[in-house]
Amino acid sequence: MAAPVAVSAPLAPPFTAWALLLEYDGTPFLGWQRQAEGLTVQGVLEEAARRLSGSLQASCAVAGRTDTGVHAAGQVALLLLRDGFHARQVRDALNFHLRPHPVAVLHAAPAAPGWHPRFSAVGRAYAYRILNRRAPPVLDRNRAWHVDRALDAATMQAAAALLTGHHDFTSFRATACQAKSPLRTLRRLDVARDGEAIWIRAEAPSFLHHQVRNMVGTLKLVGEGRWRPEDVAAALAARDRRAAGPTAPPGGLTLLRVDYPDDLFAPL
Amino acid sequence: MAAPVAVSAPLAPPFTAWALLLEYDGTPFLGWQRQAEGLTVQGVLEEAARRLSGSLQASCAVAGRTDTGVHAAGQVALLLLRDGFHARQVRDALNFHLRPHPVAVLHAAPAAPGWHPRFSAVGRAYAYRILNRRAPPVLDRNRAWHVDRALDAATMQAAAALLTGHHDFTSFRATACQAKSPLRTLRRLDVARDGEAIWIRAEAPSFLHHQVRNMVGTLKLVGEGRWRPEDVAAALAARDRRAAGPTAPPGGLTLLRVDYPDDLFAPL
Repeated sequence: MAAPVAVSAPLAPPFTAWALLLEYDGTPFLGWQRQAEGLTVQGVLEEAARRLSGSLQASCAVAGRTDTGVHAAGQVALLLLRDGFHARQVRDALNFHLRPHPVAVLHAAPAAPGWHPRFSAVGRAYAYRILNRRAPPVLDRNRAWHVDRALDAATMQAAAALLTGHHDFTSFRATACQAKSPLRTLRRLDVARDGEAIWIRAEAPSFLHHQVRNMVGTLKLVGEGRWRPEDVAAALAARDRRAAGPTAPPGGLTLLRVDYPDDLFAPL
Repeated sequence: MAAPVAVSAPLAPPFTAWALLLEYDGTPFLGWQRQAEGLTVQGVLEEAARRLSGSLQASCAVAGRTDTGVHAAGQVALLLLRDGFHARQVRDALNFHLRPHPVAVLHAAPAAPGWHPRFSAVGRAYAYRILNRRAPPVLDRNRAWHVDRALDAATMQAAAALLTGHHDFTSFRATACQAKSPLRTLRRLDVARDGEAIWIRAEAPSFLHHQVRNMVGTLKLVGEGRWRPEDVAAALAARDRRAAGPTAPPGGLTLLRVDYPDDLFAPL
Protein backbone atom coordinates (compact mmCIF):
# COMPACT_ATOMS: atom_id res chain seq x y z
CA MET A 1 0.00 0.00 0.00
CA ALA A 2 1.38 3.37 -0.96
CA ALA A 3 2.35 5.85 1.72
CA PRO A 4 0.00 8.81 1.96
CA VAL A 5 1.13 11.83 -0.03
CA ALA A 6 2.65 14.42 2.27
CA VAL A 7 1.02 17.84 2.19
CA SER A 8 4.46 19.32 1.58
CA ALA A 9 5.02 17.26 -1.60
CA PRO A 10 5.97 19.43 -4.57
CA LEU A 11 3.15 20.07 -7.03
CA ALA A 12 5.64 20.41 -9.88
CA PRO A 13 8.00 17.59 -10.91
CA PRO A 14 11.51 17.65 -9.45
CA PHE A 15 13.55 20.25 -11.20
CA THR A 16 17.18 21.17 -11.83
CA ALA A 17 18.59 24.69 -11.70
CA TRP A 18 20.77 25.44 -14.72
CA ALA A 19 23.38 28.14 -15.17
CA LEU A 20 23.32 29.40 -18.77
CA LEU A 21 25.88 31.45 -20.68
CA LEU A 22 23.98 33.56 -23.21
CA GLU A 23 24.70 35.62 -26.30
CA TYR A 24 22.09 37.96 -27.73
CA ASP A 25 21.61 40.83 -30.12
CA GLY A 26 19.59 43.35 -28.13
CA THR A 27 18.23 45.21 -31.17
CA PRO A 28 14.75 43.63 -31.37
CA PHE A 29 14.23 43.39 -27.61
CA LEU A 30 12.75 45.70 -25.00
CA GLY A 31 15.69 44.72 -22.81
CA TRP A 32 16.16 41.66 -20.67
CA GLN A 33 13.23 41.83 -18.32
CA ARG A 34 9.88 40.30 -19.17
CA GLN A 35 7.16 42.88 -19.85
CA ALA A 36 3.41 42.59 -20.11
CA GLU A 37 3.74 43.48 -23.81
CA GLY A 38 6.61 43.25 -26.27
CA LEU A 39 9.60 41.04 -26.96
CA THR A 40 12.19 40.61 -24.19
CA VAL A 41 15.17 38.28 -23.82
CA GLN A 42 13.75 36.81 -20.62
CA GLY A 43 10.42 36.31 -22.33
CA VAL A 44 11.79 34.34 -25.28
CA LEU A 45 14.10 32.30 -23.03
CA GLU A 46 11.27 31.37 -20.68
CA GLU A 47 9.08 30.47 -23.64
CA ALA A 48 11.85 28.20 -24.98
CA ALA A 49 12.14 26.61 -21.52
CA ARG A 50 8.38 26.05 -21.41
CA ARG A 51 8.47 24.28 -24.78
CA LEU A 52 11.35 22.11 -23.64
CA SER A 53 10.24 21.37 -20.13
CA GLY A 54 6.47 21.45 -20.31
CA SER A 55 4.13 23.29 -17.99
CA LEU A 56 6.69 23.98 -15.26
CA GLN A 57 6.44 27.60 -14.21
CA ALA A 58 9.69 28.68 -15.75
CA SER A 59 11.22 31.80 -14.32
CA CYS A 60 14.80 32.83 -14.68
CA ALA A 61 17.17 35.12 -12.82
CA VAL A 62 19.99 36.97 -14.52
CA ALA A 63 23.37 38.54 -13.72
CA GLY A 64 22.56 41.93 -15.27
CA ARG A 65 19.23 43.16 -16.60
CA THR A 66 20.35 44.79 -19.83
CA ASP A 67 18.31 47.69 -21.24
CA THR A 68 16.51 47.93 -24.56
CA GLY A 69 18.96 47.58 -27.43
CA VAL A 70 21.94 46.49 -25.30
CA HIS A 71 23.74 43.33 -26.43
CA ALA A 72 25.39 40.45 -24.60
CA ALA A 73 28.27 38.17 -25.54
CA GLY A 74 28.44 36.58 -22.08
CA GLN A 75 25.29 37.13 -20.04
CA VAL A 76 24.63 34.57 -17.30
CA ALA A 77 21.19 33.37 -16.20
CA LEU A 78 19.63 30.77 -13.92
CA LEU A 79 16.80 28.68 -15.33
CA LEU A 80 14.73 25.89 -13.76
CA LEU A 81 13.96 22.85 -15.91
CA ARG A 82 12.42 19.55 -15.00
CA ASP A 83 14.94 16.82 -14.16
CA GLY A 84 16.43 14.47 -16.69
CA PHE A 85 18.34 16.61 -19.15
CA HIS A 86 22.05 16.54 -19.82
CA ALA A 87 23.93 19.82 -20.21
CA ARG A 88 24.32 19.41 -23.98
CA GLN A 89 20.63 18.68 -24.35
CA VAL A 90 19.74 21.82 -22.43
CA ARG A 91 22.00 23.93 -24.62
CA ASP A 92 20.97 22.40 -27.94
CA ALA A 93 17.25 22.09 -27.20
CA LEU A 94 16.96 25.64 -25.87
CA ASN A 95 18.77 26.88 -28.99
CA PHE A 96 16.30 24.93 -31.12
CA HIS A 97 13.32 26.48 -29.34
CA LEU A 98 14.86 29.99 -29.29
CA ARG A 99 14.78 30.22 -33.07
CA PRO A 100 14.36 32.60 -34.83
CA HIS A 101 15.12 35.05 -32.04
CA PRO A 102 18.73 36.30 -31.88
CA VAL A 103 19.48 34.61 -28.55
CA ALA A 104 21.79 31.62 -28.12
CA VAL A 105 22.78 29.43 -25.19
CA LEU A 106 26.56 29.04 -25.45
CA HIS A 107 26.93 26.76 -22.42
CA ALA A 108 24.74 25.15 -19.78
CA ALA A 109 25.84 23.70 -16.45
CA PRO A 110 23.96 22.50 -13.36
CA ALA A 111 23.98 25.32 -10.81
CA ALA A 112 25.48 24.67 -7.39
CA PRO A 113 23.03 24.91 -4.45
CA GLY A 114 22.66 28.53 -3.41
CA TRP A 115 24.33 29.90 -6.52
CA HIS A 116 22.63 32.98 -7.98
CA PRO A 117 23.68 34.62 -11.26
CA ARG A 118 23.45 38.12 -9.83
CA PHE A 119 24.35 37.79 -6.15
CA SER A 120 27.17 35.28 -6.68
CA ALA A 121 28.85 37.39 -9.38
CA VAL A 122 32.11 39.11 -8.43
CA GLY A 123 32.75 41.04 -11.63
CA ARG A 124 31.21 42.37 -14.85
CA ALA A 125 32.95 43.47 -18.04
CA TYR A 126 31.34 45.66 -20.70
CA ALA A 127 32.55 46.96 -24.04
CA TYR A 128 31.21 50.10 -25.72
CA ARG A 129 31.92 50.83 -29.38
CA ILE A 130 31.86 54.25 -31.01
CA LEU A 131 32.10 54.41 -34.82
CA ASN A 132 33.96 57.66 -35.41
CA ARG A 133 33.65 58.60 -39.05
CA ARG A 134 31.50 60.67 -41.35
CA ALA A 135 29.69 57.81 -43.14
CA PRO A 136 26.90 56.07 -41.24
CA PRO A 137 27.42 52.58 -39.80
CA VAL A 138 26.57 49.70 -42.10
CA LEU A 139 28.42 46.57 -41.01
CA ASP A 140 28.13 47.86 -37.39
CA ARG A 141 24.55 49.12 -37.65
CA ASN A 142 22.77 48.89 -34.26
CA ARG A 143 26.09 47.86 -32.74
CA ALA A 144 27.95 51.16 -32.42
CA TRP A 145 27.33 54.81 -31.58
CA HIS A 146 27.89 56.87 -34.71
CA VAL A 147 29.88 60.01 -33.86
CA ASP A 148 30.96 61.94 -36.93
CA ARG A 149 33.06 64.61 -35.26
CA ALA A 150 36.69 63.48 -34.83
CA LEU A 151 37.33 62.22 -31.30
CA ASP A 152 40.68 62.36 -29.49
CA ALA A 153 40.92 58.91 -27.91
CA ALA A 154 44.09 59.72 -25.97
CA THR A 155 42.42 62.58 -24.12
CA MET A 156 39.36 60.39 -23.51
CA GLN A 157 41.69 57.81 -21.97
CA ALA A 158 43.21 60.49 -19.70
CA ALA A 159 39.72 61.42 -18.52
CA ALA A 160 38.72 57.77 -18.07
CA ALA A 161 41.66 57.25 -15.72
CA LEU A 162 40.14 59.86 -13.38
CA LEU A 163 37.01 57.70 -12.98
CA THR A 164 38.68 54.43 -12.01
CA GLY A 165 38.80 53.45 -8.36
CA HIS A 166 36.28 53.52 -5.51
CA HIS A 167 33.90 56.50 -5.83
CA ASP A 168 30.41 57.77 -5.29
CA PHE A 169 29.10 57.52 -8.86
CA THR A 170 25.85 59.43 -8.27
CA SER A 171 26.71 61.71 -11.23
CA PHE A 172 26.81 58.70 -13.58
CA ARG A 173 23.79 56.86 -12.23
CA ALA A 174 20.33 56.84 -13.78
CA THR A 175 17.92 58.83 -11.63
CA ALA A 176 15.72 55.72 -11.62
CA CYS A 177 18.56 53.52 -10.30
CA GLN A 178 17.36 51.40 -7.39
CA ALA A 179 20.75 50.39 -5.93
CA LYS A 180 21.00 51.14 -2.23
CA SER A 181 24.46 52.68 -2.48
CA PRO A 182 26.01 54.89 -5.19
CA LEU A 183 29.48 53.65 -4.22
CA ARG A 184 31.18 51.45 -6.77
CA THR A 185 34.72 50.32 -7.50
CA LEU A 186 35.60 50.84 -11.15
CA ARG A 187 38.52 48.49 -11.76
CA ARG A 188 39.11 49.38 -15.36
CA LEU A 189 37.97 52.03 -17.84
CA ASP A 190 40.07 52.01 -21.00
CA VAL A 191 39.65 53.94 -24.23
CA ALA A 192 41.46 52.74 -27.35
CA ARG A 193 41.16 53.63 -31.01
CA ASP A 194 41.18 50.87 -33.64
CA GLY A 195 40.87 52.58 -37.02
CA GLU A 196 37.43 54.21 -37.22
CA ALA A 197 36.30 52.47 -34.02
CA ILE A 198 36.85 53.67 -30.48
CA TRP A 199 36.47 50.89 -27.91
CA ILE A 200 35.73 51.64 -24.27
CA ARG A 201 36.20 48.73 -21.86
CA ALA A 202 34.77 48.89 -18.34
CA GLU A 203 35.19 46.36 -15.53
CA ALA A 204 33.86 46.45 -11.97
CA PRO A 205 32.41 44.09 -9.36
CA SER A 206 29.08 45.71 -10.24
CA PHE A 207 27.74 48.80 -11.97
CA LEU A 208 24.94 51.27 -11.30
CA HIS A 209 22.04 51.60 -13.74
CA HIS A 210 23.24 53.36 -16.93
CA GLN A 211 26.68 53.86 -15.38
CA VAL A 212 28.67 52.69 -18.40
CA ARG A 213 26.54 54.60 -20.90
CA ASN A 214 26.66 57.76 -18.78
CA MET A 215 30.45 57.52 -18.50
CA VAL A 216 30.72 57.00 -22.27
CA GLY A 217 28.43 59.99 -22.97
CA THR A 218 30.68 62.11 -20.78
CA LEU A 219 33.94 60.84 -22.29
CA LYS A 220 32.60 61.69 -25.74
CA LEU A 221 32.42 65.35 -24.66
CA VAL A 222 36.10 65.12 -23.78
CA GLY A 223 36.94 63.46 -27.09
CA GLU A 224 35.25 66.31 -28.97
CA GLY A 225 37.28 68.88 -27.01
CA ARG A 226 34.16 70.35 -25.38
CA TRP A 227 35.24 69.11 -21.94
CA ARG A 228 38.71 68.78 -20.43
CA PRO A 229 39.60 65.66 -18.42
CA GLU A 230 39.45 67.70 -15.20
CA ASP A 231 35.83 68.56 -16.00
CA VAL A 232 35.07 64.85 -15.69
CA ALA A 233 36.71 64.74 -12.26
CA ALA A 234 34.61 67.76 -11.24
CA ALA A 235 31.45 66.04 -12.51
CA LEU A 236 32.27 62.97 -10.44
CA ALA A 237 32.88 65.11 -7.35
CA ALA A 238 29.56 66.94 -7.82
CA ARG A 239 27.55 63.76 -7.02
CA ASP A 240 24.73 65.11 -9.17
CA ARG A 241 23.48 63.41 -12.35
CA ARG A 242 23.04 66.84 -13.97
CA ALA A 243 26.77 67.51 -13.63
CA ALA A 244 27.83 64.73 -16.03
CA GLY A 245 27.23 64.23 -19.75
CA PRO A 246 24.29 62.62 -21.53
CA THR A 247 23.58 58.88 -21.69
CA ALA A 248 25.22 57.22 -24.69
CA PRO A 249 22.79 55.23 -26.89
CA PRO A 250 22.30 51.54 -26.04
CA GLY A 251 23.34 49.88 -29.31
CA GLY A 252 27.06 50.46 -28.70
CA LEU A 253 27.02 48.52 -25.42
CA THR A 254 27.73 44.81 -25.00
CA LEU A 255 27.90 42.84 -21.74
CA LEU A 256 31.04 40.82 -22.40
CA ARG A 257 31.48 38.70 -19.31
CA VAL A 258 30.28 37.98 -15.79
CA ASP A 259 32.84 36.60 -13.34
CA TYR A 260 32.25 34.17 -10.47
CA PRO A 261 34.61 32.77 -7.85
CA ASP A 262 34.58 29.41 -9.64
CA ASP A 263 34.42 28.58 -13.33
CA LEU A 264 30.81 27.77 -14.11
CA PHE A 265 31.07 26.37 -17.57
CA ALA A 266 33.39 23.48 -18.22
CA PRO A 267 33.69 22.58 -21.91
CA LEU A 268 30.90 20.20 -22.92
CA MET B 1 23.75 84.88 -82.72
CA ALA B 2 24.51 81.52 -81.13
CA ALA B 3 26.78 79.10 -82.89
CA PRO B 4 24.98 76.10 -84.33
CA VAL B 5 24.97 73.14 -82.01
CA ALA B 6 27.52 70.59 -83.12
CA VAL B 7 26.13 67.16 -83.82
CA SER B 8 28.73 65.72 -81.45
CA ALA B 9 27.65 67.93 -78.51
CA PRO B 10 26.82 65.82 -75.45
CA LEU B 11 23.14 65.39 -74.82
CA ALA B 12 23.79 65.11 -71.06
CA PRO B 13 25.36 67.90 -68.98
CA PRO B 14 29.10 67.73 -68.40
CA PHE B 15 29.87 65.07 -65.86
CA THR B 16 32.59 64.04 -63.44
CA ALA B 17 33.72 60.46 -62.84
CA TRP B 18 33.98 59.66 -59.14
CA ALA B 19 35.86 56.86 -57.43
CA LEU B 20 33.89 55.65 -54.40
CA LEU B 21 34.99 53.54 -51.44
CA LEU B 22 31.97 51.51 -50.30
CA GLU B 23 30.89 49.46 -47.30
CA TYR B 24 27.84 47.24 -47.47
CA ASP B 25 26.06 44.42 -45.71
CA GLY B 26 25.28 41.97 -48.49
CA THR B 27 22.48 40.19 -46.62
CA PRO B 28 19.47 41.89 -48.24
CA PHE B 29 20.99 42.11 -51.73
CA LEU B 30 20.99 39.82 -54.74
CA GLY B 31 24.68 40.68 -55.06
CA TRP B 32 26.32 43.70 -56.62
CA GLN B 33 25.06 43.59 -60.16
CA ARG B 34 21.80 45.26 -61.17
CA GLN B 35 19.03 42.80 -62.02
CA ALA B 36 15.70 43.23 -63.75
CA GLU B 37 14.02 42.38 -60.42
CA GLY B 38 15.21 42.53 -56.84
CA LEU B 39 17.48 44.63 -54.68
CA THR B 40 21.14 44.93 -55.68
CA VAL B 41 23.96 47.15 -54.41
CA GLN B 42 24.49 48.63 -57.87
CA GLY B 43 20.76 49.28 -58.14
CA VAL B 44 20.46 51.23 -54.89
CA LEU B 45 23.69 53.14 -55.58
CA GLU B 46 22.54 54.17 -59.06
CA GLU B 47 19.17 55.19 -57.66
CA ALA B 48 20.91 57.36 -55.04
CA ALA B 49 23.02 58.90 -57.82
CA ARG B 50 19.90 59.62 -59.87
CA ARG B 51 18.29 61.41 -56.93
CA LEU B 52 21.43 63.46 -56.39
CA SER B 53 22.33 64.19 -59.95
CA GLY B 54 19.03 64.25 -61.79
CA SER B 55 18.19 62.48 -64.98
CA LEU B 56 21.77 61.67 -66.00
CA GLN B 57 21.97 58.05 -67.06
CA ALA B 58 23.88 56.85 -64.04
CA SER B 59 25.81 53.66 -64.52
CA CYS B 60 28.61 52.49 -62.35
CA ALA B 61 31.52 50.10 -62.74
CA VAL B 62 32.98 48.15 -59.84
CA ALA B 63 36.20 46.45 -58.77
CA GLY B 64 34.58 43.12 -57.90
CA ARG B 65 30.99 42.02 -58.51
CA THR B 66 30.19 40.39 -55.18
CA ASP B 67 27.63 37.59 -55.09
CA THR B 68 24.34 37.44 -53.19
CA GLY B 69 24.95 37.76 -49.46
CA VAL B 70 28.65 38.69 -49.72
CA HIS B 71 29.71 41.80 -47.76
CA ALA B 72 32.18 44.59 -48.46
CA ALA B 73 34.23 46.75 -46.14
CA GLY B 74 36.25 48.32 -48.97
CA GLN B 75 34.59 47.85 -52.35
CA VAL B 76 35.58 50.41 -55.02
CA ALA B 77 33.26 51.73 -57.74
CA LEU B 78 33.21 54.36 -60.47
CA LEU B 79 30.14 56.57 -60.71
CA LEU B 80 29.31 59.42 -63.11
CA LEU B 81 27.65 62.50 -61.65
CA ARG B 82 26.95 65.89 -63.18
CA ASP B 83 29.62 68.50 -62.58
CA GLY B 84 29.65 70.83 -59.61
CA PHE B 85 29.94 68.62 -56.54
CA HIS B 86 32.75 68.56 -54.04
CA ALA B 87 34.01 65.20 -52.76
CA ARG B 88 32.42 65.67 -49.33
CA GLN B 89 29.09 66.53 -50.93
CA VAL B 90 29.22 63.40 -53.06
CA ARG B 91 29.93 61.23 -50.01
CA ASP B 92 27.37 62.84 -47.70
CA ALA B 93 24.60 63.29 -50.28
CA LEU B 94 24.90 59.74 -51.61
CA ASN B 95 24.77 58.46 -48.02
CA PHE B 96 21.64 60.51 -47.46
CA HIS B 97 19.95 59.07 -50.54
CA LEU B 98 21.17 55.51 -49.83
CA ARG B 99 19.12 55.32 -46.63
CA PRO B 100 17.76 52.97 -45.37
CA HIS B 101 19.77 50.47 -47.39
CA PRO B 102 22.87 49.05 -45.67
CA VAL B 103 25.31 50.70 -48.10
CA ALA B 104 27.62 53.59 -47.21
CA VAL B 105 30.07 55.71 -49.20
CA LEU B 106 33.18 55.95 -47.00
CA HIS B 107 35.17 58.18 -49.37
CA ALA B 108 34.74 59.85 -52.75
CA ALA B 109 37.46 61.22 -55.01
CA PRO B 110 37.51 62.45 -58.62
CA ALA B 111 38.74 59.59 -60.80
CA ALA B 112 41.84 60.16 -62.95
CA PRO B 113 41.28 59.97 -66.73
CA GLY B 114 41.37 56.37 -67.87
CA TRP B 115 41.10 54.97 -64.34
CA HIS B 116 38.78 51.98 -64.01
CA PRO B 117 37.91 50.32 -60.69
CA ARG B 118 38.33 46.82 -62.05
CA PHE B 119 41.01 47.09 -64.72
CA SER B 120 43.23 49.49 -62.77
CA ALA B 121 43.19 47.34 -59.63
CA VAL B 122 46.39 45.50 -58.75
CA GLY B 123 45.18 43.57 -55.70
CA ARG B 124 42.16 42.32 -53.77
CA ALA B 125 41.93 41.21 -50.15
CA TYR B 126 39.09 39.11 -48.75
CA ALA B 127 38.33 37.79 -45.28
CA TYR B 128 36.19 34.74 -44.58
CA ARG B 129 34.86 34.02 -41.10
CA ILE B 130 33.83 30.61 -39.75
CA LEU B 131 32.05 30.49 -36.39
CA ASN B 132 33.21 27.18 -34.95
CA ARG B 133 31.00 26.29 -32.00
CA ARG B 134 27.90 24.33 -31.19
CA ALA B 135 25.54 27.28 -30.57
CA PRO B 136 24.20 29.09 -33.63
CA PRO B 137 25.54 32.57 -34.55
CA VAL B 138 23.72 35.49 -32.99
CA LEU B 139 26.00 38.53 -32.94
CA ASP B 140 27.58 37.24 -36.18
CA ARG B 141 24.35 36.10 -37.84
CA ASN B 142 24.59 36.35 -41.66
CA ARG B 143 28.26 37.23 -41.24
CA ALA B 144 29.89 33.87 -40.56
CA TRP B 145 29.66 30.24 -41.64
CA HIS B 146 28.42 28.20 -38.70
CA VAL B 147 30.45 24.97 -38.42
CA ASP B 148 29.69 23.03 -35.25
CA ARG B 149 32.24 20.26 -35.61
CA ALA B 150 35.61 21.27 -34.07
CA LEU B 151 38.06 22.44 -36.75
CA ASP B 152 41.84 22.17 -36.54
CA ALA B 153 42.99 25.58 -37.74
CA ALA B 154 46.69 24.65 -37.75
CA THR B 155 46.11 21.82 -40.24
CA MET B 156 43.90 24.11 -42.32
CA GLN B 157 46.80 26.60 -42.41
CA ALA B 158 49.17 23.84 -43.57
CA ALA B 159 46.78 23.02 -46.41
CA ALA B 160 46.29 26.70 -47.27
CA ALA B 161 50.04 27.08 -47.74
CA LEU B 162 49.87 24.50 -50.56
CA LEU B 163 47.50 26.77 -52.50
CA THR B 164 49.54 29.96 -52.43
CA GLY B 165 51.58 30.92 -55.48
CA HIS B 166 50.91 30.89 -59.23
CA HIS B 167 48.62 28.02 -60.20
CA ASP B 168 45.87 26.86 -62.51
CA PHE B 169 42.89 27.20 -60.14
CA THR B 170 40.36 25.39 -62.34
CA SER B 171 39.47 23.11 -59.39
CA PHE B 172 38.44 26.15 -57.32
CA ARG B 173 36.63 28.09 -60.03
CA ALA B 174 32.88 28.27 -60.51
CA THR B 175 31.86 26.34 -63.59
CA ALA B 176 30.12 29.53 -64.74
CA CYS B 177 33.32 31.62 -64.33
CA GLN B 178 33.89 33.75 -67.44
CA ALA B 179 37.56 34.61 -66.90
CA LYS B 180 39.68 33.79 -69.95
CA SER B 181 42.44 32.12 -67.93
CA PRO B 182 42.26 29.89 -64.84
CA LEU B 183 45.79 30.99 -63.87
CA ARG B 184 45.98 33.18 -60.77
CA THR B 185 48.67 34.18 -58.30
CA LEU B 186 47.50 33.65 -54.74
CA ARG B 187 49.75 35.90 -52.68
CA ARG B 188 48.35 35.02 -49.30
CA LEU B 189 45.99 32.44 -47.81
CA ASP B 190 46.13 32.45 -44.01
CA VAL B 191 44.02 30.56 -41.50
CA ALA B 192 43.98 31.72 -37.87
CA ARG B 193 41.78 30.90 -34.91
CA ASP B 194 40.53 33.69 -32.64
CA GLY B 195 38.44 32.03 -29.92
CA GLU B 196 35.36 30.54 -31.56
CA ALA B 197 36.11 32.27 -34.86
CA ILE B 198 38.39 31.01 -37.61
CA TRP B 199 39.50 33.76 -39.97
CA ILE B 200 40.74 33.00 -43.47
CA ARG B 201 42.50 35.87 -45.25
CA ALA B 202 43.11 35.73 -49.01
CA GLU B 203 45.02 38.20 -51.17
CA ALA B 204 45.75 38.13 -54.89
CA PRO B 205 45.97 40.49 -57.85
CA SER B 206 42.60 39.03 -58.85
CA PHE B 207 40.43 36.01 -58.11
CA LEU B 208 38.32 33.64 -60.17
CA HIS B 209 34.55 33.43 -59.59
CA HIS B 210 33.85 31.67 -56.25
CA GLN B 211 37.57 31.01 -55.79
CA VAL B 212 37.74 32.15 -52.17
CA ARG B 213 34.55 30.35 -51.16
CA ASN B 214 35.64 27.16 -52.96
CA MET B 215 39.03 27.26 -51.21
CA VAL B 216 37.29 27.81 -47.84
CA GLY B 217 34.87 24.95 -48.45
CA THR B 218 37.85 22.70 -49.18
CA LEU B 219 39.90 23.87 -46.19
CA LYS B 220 36.93 23.10 -43.94
CA LEU B 221 37.19 19.42 -45.01
CA VAL B 222 40.80 19.52 -43.83
CA GLY B 223 39.85 21.19 -40.55
CA GLU B 224 37.34 18.42 -39.87
CA GLY B 225 39.97 15.77 -40.51
CA ARG B 226 38.11 14.38 -43.52
CA TRP B 227 40.88 15.54 -45.89
CA ARG B 228 44.63 15.73 -45.38
CA PRO B 229 46.57 18.77 -46.59
CA GLU B 230 48.03 16.72 -49.44
CA ASP B 231 44.50 15.99 -50.65
CA VAL B 232 44.15 19.73 -51.27
CA ALA B 233 47.34 19.73 -53.34
CA ALA B 234 45.97 16.80 -55.33
CA ALA B 235 42.68 18.63 -55.88
CA LEU B 236 44.57 21.65 -57.20
CA ALA B 237 46.63 19.45 -59.53
CA ALA B 238 43.48 17.76 -60.88
CA ARG B 239 42.30 20.99 -62.59
CA ASP B 240 38.74 19.77 -62.22
CA ARG B 241 36.08 21.53 -60.16
CA ARG B 242 34.71 18.16 -59.02
CA ALA B 243 38.06 17.34 -57.38
CA ALA B 244 37.81 20.13 -54.76
CA GLY B 245 35.38 20.71 -51.88
CA PRO B 246 32.01 22.45 -51.89
CA THR B 247 31.45 26.20 -52.08
CA ALA B 248 31.36 27.85 -48.64
CA PRO B 249 28.21 29.94 -48.02
CA PRO B 250 28.37 33.64 -48.96
CA GLY B 251 27.63 35.29 -45.61
CA GLY B 252 31.09 34.57 -44.19
CA LEU B 253 32.84 36.46 -47.00
CA THR B 254 33.80 40.15 -46.94
CA LEU B 255 35.71 42.07 -49.61
CA LEU B 256 38.13 43.98 -47.40
CA ARG B 257 40.21 46.04 -49.79
CA VAL B 258 41.04 46.76 -53.41
CA ASP B 259 44.55 48.02 -54.16
CA TYR B 260 45.64 50.44 -56.89
CA PRO B 261 49.08 51.70 -57.90
CA ASP B 262 48.26 55.10 -56.35
CA ASP B 263 46.23 55.99 -53.27
CA LEU B 264 42.78 56.94 -54.48
CA PHE B 265 41.25 58.36 -51.36
CA ALA B 266 43.05 61.17 -49.59
CA PRO B 267 41.43 62.12 -46.26
CA LEU B 268 38.61 64.61 -46.83
